[in-house]
Amino acid sequence: MLIVMKQGADERQVEHVCRVVQEMGLAPHPIPGKLRTAIGITGNVGPVDPSGLTALPGVLEVIRVTKPFKLTSREMKPEDTIVEVGGVRIGGPEIVVIAGPCSVEAREPIARAAKELKARGAHLLRGGAFKPRTSPYTFQGLGLEGLKLLADARAQSGLPIVSEVMATEDVPQVEEHVDILQIGARNMQNAPLLKRVGKARKPVLLKRGMAATLEEFLLAAEYVMAEGNRQVILCERGIRTFADHSRFTLDLSIVPELKRLTHLPVIVDPSHAAGRRDIVIPLARAAIAVGADGVMVEVHPDPARAQSDGAQALTLAMFEELMDELRLIVPAVRRGSVAAR
Amino acid sequence: MLIVMKQGADERQVEHVCRVVQEMGLAPHPIPGKLRTAIGITGNVGPVDPSGLTALPGVLEVIRVTKPFKLTSREMKPEDTIVEVGGVRIGGPEIVVIAGPCSVEAREPIARAAKELKARGAHLLRGGAFKPRTSPYTFQGLGLEGLKLLADARAQSGLPIVSEVMATEDVPQVEEHVDILQIGARNMQNAPLLKRVGKARKPVLLKRGMAATLEEFLLAAEYVMAEGNRQVILCERGIRTFADHSRFTLDLSIVPELKRLTHLPVIVDPSHAAGRRDIVIPLARAAIAVGADGVMVEVHPDPARAQSDGAQALTLAMFEELMDELRLIVPAVRRGSVAAR
Amino acid sequence: MLIVMKQGADERQVEHVCRVVQEMGLAPHPIPGKLRTAIGITGNVGPVDPSGLTALPGVLEVIRVTKPFKLTSREMKPEDTIVEVGGVRIGGPEIVVIAGPCSVEAREPIARAAKELKARGAHLLRGGAFKPRTSPYTFQGLGLEGLKLLADARAQSGLPIVSEVMATEDVPQVEEHVDILQIGARNMQNAPLLKRVGKARKPVLLKRGMAATLEEFLLAAEYVMAEGNRQVILCERGIRTFADHSRFTLDLSIVPELKRLTHLPVIVDPSHAAGRRDIVIPLARAAIAVGADGVMVEVHPDPARAQSDGAQALTLAMFEELMDELRLIVPAVRRGSVAAR
Amino acid sequence: MLIVMKQGADERQVEHVCRVVQEMGLAPHPIPGKLRTAIGITGNVGPVDPSGLTALPGVLEVIRVTKPFKLTSREMKPEDTIVEVGGVRIGGPEIVVIAGPCSVEAREPIARAAKELKARGAHLLRGGAFKPRTSPYTFQGLGLEGLKLLADARAQSGLPIVSEVMATEDVPQVEEHVDILQIGARNMQNAPLLKRVGKARKPVLLKRGMAATLEEFLLAAEYVMAEGNRQVILCERGIRTFADHSRFTLDLSIVPELKRLTHLPVIVDPSHAAGRRDIVIPLARAAIAVGADGVMVEVHPDPARAQSDGAQALTLAMFEELMDELRLIVPAVRRGSVAAR
Repeated sequence: MLIVMKQGADERQVEHVCRVVQEMGLAPHPIPGKLRTAIGITGNVGPVDPSGLTALPGVLEVIRVTKPFKLTSREMKPEDTIVEVGGVRIGGPEIVVIAGPCSVEAREPIARAAKELKARGAHLLRGGAFKPRTSPYTFQGLGLEGLKLLADARAQSGLPIVSEVMATEDVPQVEEHVDILQIGARNMQNAPLLKRVGKARKPVLLKRGMAATLEEFLLAAEYVMAEGNRQVILCERGIRTFADHSRFTLDLSIVPELKRLTHLPVIVDPSHAAGRRDIVIPLARAAIAVGADGVMVEVHPDPARAQSDGAQALTLAMFEELMDELRLIVPAVRRGSVAAR
Repeated sequence: MLIVMKQGADERQVEHVCRVVQEMGLAPHPIPGKLRTAIGITGNVGPVDPSGLTALPGVLEVIRVTKPFKLTSREMKPEDTIVEVGGVRIGGPEIVVIAGPCSVEAREPIARAAKELKARGAHLLRGGAFKPRTSPYTFQGLGLEGLKLLADARAQSGLPIVSEVMATEDVPQVEEHVDILQIGARNMQNAPLLKRVGKARKPVLLKRGMAATLEEFLLAAEYVMAEGNRQVILCERGIRTFADHSRFTLDLSIVPELKRLTHLPVIVDPSHAAGRRDIVIPLARAAIAVGADGVMVEVHPDPARAQSDGAQALTLAMFEELMDELRLIVPAVRRGSVAAR
Repeated sequence: MLIVMKQGADERQVEHVCRVVQEMGLAPHPIPGKLRTAIGITGNVGPVDPSGLTALPGVLEVIRVTKPFKLTSREMKPEDTIVEVGGVRIGGPEIVVIAGPCSVEAREPIARAAKELKARGAHLLRGGAFKPRTSPYTFQGLGLEGLKLLADARAQSGLPIVSEVMATEDVPQVEEHVDILQIGARNMQNAPLLKRVGKARKPVLLKRGMAATLEEFLLAAEYVMAEGNRQVILCERGIRTFADHSRFTLDLSIVPELKRLTHLPVIVDPSHAAGRRDIVIPLARAAIAVGADGVMVEVHPDPARAQSDGAQALTLAMFEELMDELRLIVPAVRRGSVAAR
Repeated sequence: MLIVMKQGADERQVEHVCRVVQEMGLAPHPIPGKLRTAIGITGNVGPVDPSGLTALPGVLEVIRVTKPFKLTSREMKPEDTIVEVGGVRIGGPEIVVIAGPCSVEAREPIARAAKELKARGAHLLRGGAFKPRTSPYTFQGLGLEGLKLLADARAQSGLPIVSEVMATEDVPQVEEHVDILQIGARNMQNAPLLKRVGKARKPVLLKRGMAATLEEFLLAAEYVMAEGNRQVILCERGIRTFADHSRFTLDLSIVPELKRLTHLPVIVDPSHAAGRRDIVIPLARAAIAVGADGVMVEVHPDPARAQSDGAQALTLAMFEELMDELRLIVPAVRRGSVAAR
């Protein structure tokens, strides 16, 4: 931490700040400059919030220097974390493809989708049973019934399943049926939910909030890990910006930076970022090229009749095209090949 | 809704789209233009997501025209909703001031803060018992104990209290102790929590999410109201932008637009937007000038030692100055006067 | 400046960084911490870009501490700059109102607008002769002819005039006709234009770029001032964000921060921020309440037939209402009264 | 265009709007709905700004439907535009790599850089002679002298050169020395400059403004093309967002959308977006994977001593690594191979 004093700050004020810093159990190191004095602070910051120091006379600014994440940090655990479910390894040399409809709508369609996706090389099946919708008047998902249909689809296809959990009280039943618990972008800073899935025995796929900085994203993962669950997969899915040609702006530059800072697997969801199917394939290619460990895409056998997010769902033919493209791009980034068709 | 066809779209494609629209129970109205055909759609959109229509051959774009909010809408209920707690009316002609520390830290400080704020003209006391912190390693609030300390402070000062609830399972105990349940910005799209406080008998103060559009904000209120709780107060608290001179960018232009579209009270929290105490007072003045029904500010008797958000808390002397300023500005916007000192 | 070394950086690397810093004519001050070493740097940074130091082995980050603005800084000139044109003082105790149509369209309308605005209390007349339009196919302004019509309107109404200059080669003729040269938001970082108006003898009204940080805004003013022109008025006009209920998001929190950091006058343009007339008046009230020295608004006698930006222009009746509102709010912020009707 | 009437709008108001629309030379098509009436408008919009129609009684909103770009549009010219300079084709099947230092600093370094880059497979040399710096107190470039040094470097290396032009009056001399005129992000909406390079005989590389929408970007190109110069290359270089792990947020999703809407070549500058060298290579890979026609990167033989933007410049060794990576990724997107080493 660095405290920058105002230009006119006098010695007495510098001493006073140093004293308060010492009372907080930290060590102050004054650095007198030509125009102003700065005070470097060392030691571990405890429960007191250092930003309050700006209230002291003569203080211009408090600049935080060290990063607050620990368990997610590669400095703490240099080797990559690999999350394994049903024989699929996420975060290792192989690229992983998670695919499926936005919502589970009925038994037959989800079972058929699973079979078709498996045949085309998908590694995991996604499908929403509990849906975080913007409006209370739109389809909210089938709930528990949807989970059971997903489990049936897994039984028939062999694909492990990922599904979102939105409430702490639903964690037990979602955990019972799915292989990976997804935390949606809207819940990235829902601390009680993060703590609850931190106690679950299934891996957690954590989506970046639409306005989350990298640091906030890692601290959300830290909430899960601090409760004991070390199986966290990070997922970039686009941020809110002024740009209006895609629903969200896919921030691919966060991928290499996350890979540098954390040992956790990082995947990309181009479908929610795009909000429209026609740019999903190029964005998925770019996600792999930038260094992601996999992609998660929405696929619907009949998008024009989907109950949610139909505009962004790939058709099965487009999914096939996506897999063909990935089979070309994966070796070009020296990653293990996407499963053969 | 309006469907815009591609320039080269032929008659057969237009007819096909019209047929699918009719299957959805809606009425299509083709408008042939010089370059392309548009198809106006009338009727109530049901569970099928119309955005999926972009998958049909020849369709360029689907443009939504009508707004999806109902219970929050001033078209449905033209007269202002006034929320009343402990003799304080929010949304009426009087301006309301909610003040208090970020977190409840201990019995004596919160009781003293309440007494001092009451003496200076505050109408309600705020204080966090359950804290939504970015990092799991910082102070998370006193929980139930904090609620009791708040209730004691109310008993001594006479100020009704507002406090945040973060989890559905905490709603009963928070509801028991506080007068207004606050939903924080990070939970604005936490549907299960919104639905749960929609069943509570206490009013809800709903903060705008840091990346929420006006429509998403009103739809979040709609979630609460659809469950039966019509006592909702909206609170603008700053959005995420690139601007780095304040922690968030206070979006005051949403206030008159909300007042136009909804009958619900609208207040402004300048403290979280600013992230620094020295611009809180001018922003509070501006909030009243733009048409807000009140302000919510953080005040701490000793900000340099606050356990959270110390940088943005007003001192008691500054709160006094704020109240003096508001006593001048309130009549200038033809609102009822802030309680005399 | 502060250089933060990586956790594993060894002594040799710290020494090497210190040596390079010394070669740059600066003084390094190592601060060994528990986990990592930081190096405080003092002295004036010259032509070499210190950010390049991140290339040295062992360096994690380079953090700039001091601010790069000088002539605009209140630390350099504590007293307020007051810009005076035609008897109107901008930046003093009186609030200033600049009003007029987006574009000068023809002789009669602009002359009549000037007369009507003067009668309702406006202090300066605005009107575009050179228009920075997004599309090359829309009305680009009347150019020199427009300047002459503006000068005639001034002669008839007595209102000094403000008009935008977009090209260095137009500066002489714009300077000849107008009282204040406006630099539009799209040109805020057009260095040759800033330098050119820095040599003009007329004051400059500098609009904030739609994606400009506070620092970039002040550095743009610095470009003008460094050439000798110290008469600069800053104008907030909204920034680009995701929010879609207004064309831009008016960032009123920059006003008190600018007033703290710089001695220059600061005004606000609510019309371009809003993009719609119905929220212009409340935003203008808020601008004065937050501490601005004046407002600039678009007014058109017949907005439905305006050649540009008709959606945001106030009618004359609305302008009258605006002036009535300002007459109430101005004394409430202890500012000199807006000229009586 | 679509005009949406308010819910309570009566027939007389609808008729009045239709009449005004007809006066503008357009054809109105009323579509009565359950709750409100919409009016579709067909015909070519002329000089009158339709947004002014919101001022008419009963009008809720005016929604523009058709896109305003023409010469840039793929609907007008379906086949790809290929820009050719010095034997290099931009926009064809081959991927193009433009590389060089941020600023031209002296004769020997730029000549050496050109030779080294050529040897490693670069196709064009970039280098700034006129520099658009945020602060007037930092290095502003060598100007004309810099152009001559660039031309010498071309003579020795054989690489065609790209350099920025910032002022209309500099266009003749920049045009004389360079092969491609660059318009920087800060000048993307500088209409006089766009018009001036629209009259030049050299191709224009147009960078996206940091807050420009796709439509504004294409309209800027339209400004250039409307003056006769059809040789325009578009360049995505990152947009301003809240994300702070990169200097700007590289918006790769704009690439496939641009390729769909326009026939112009599209390249990507990952260096300015990143603001730091360590994520430039993965972003360059992603740019090619998403469908860009090339990349432009900053390379400096000794970044720690660069006079501008040292933090983001690749070393020569890193450039070599970049070219190796591109040689793998280019065939994976079925593009012509990057020149062999």
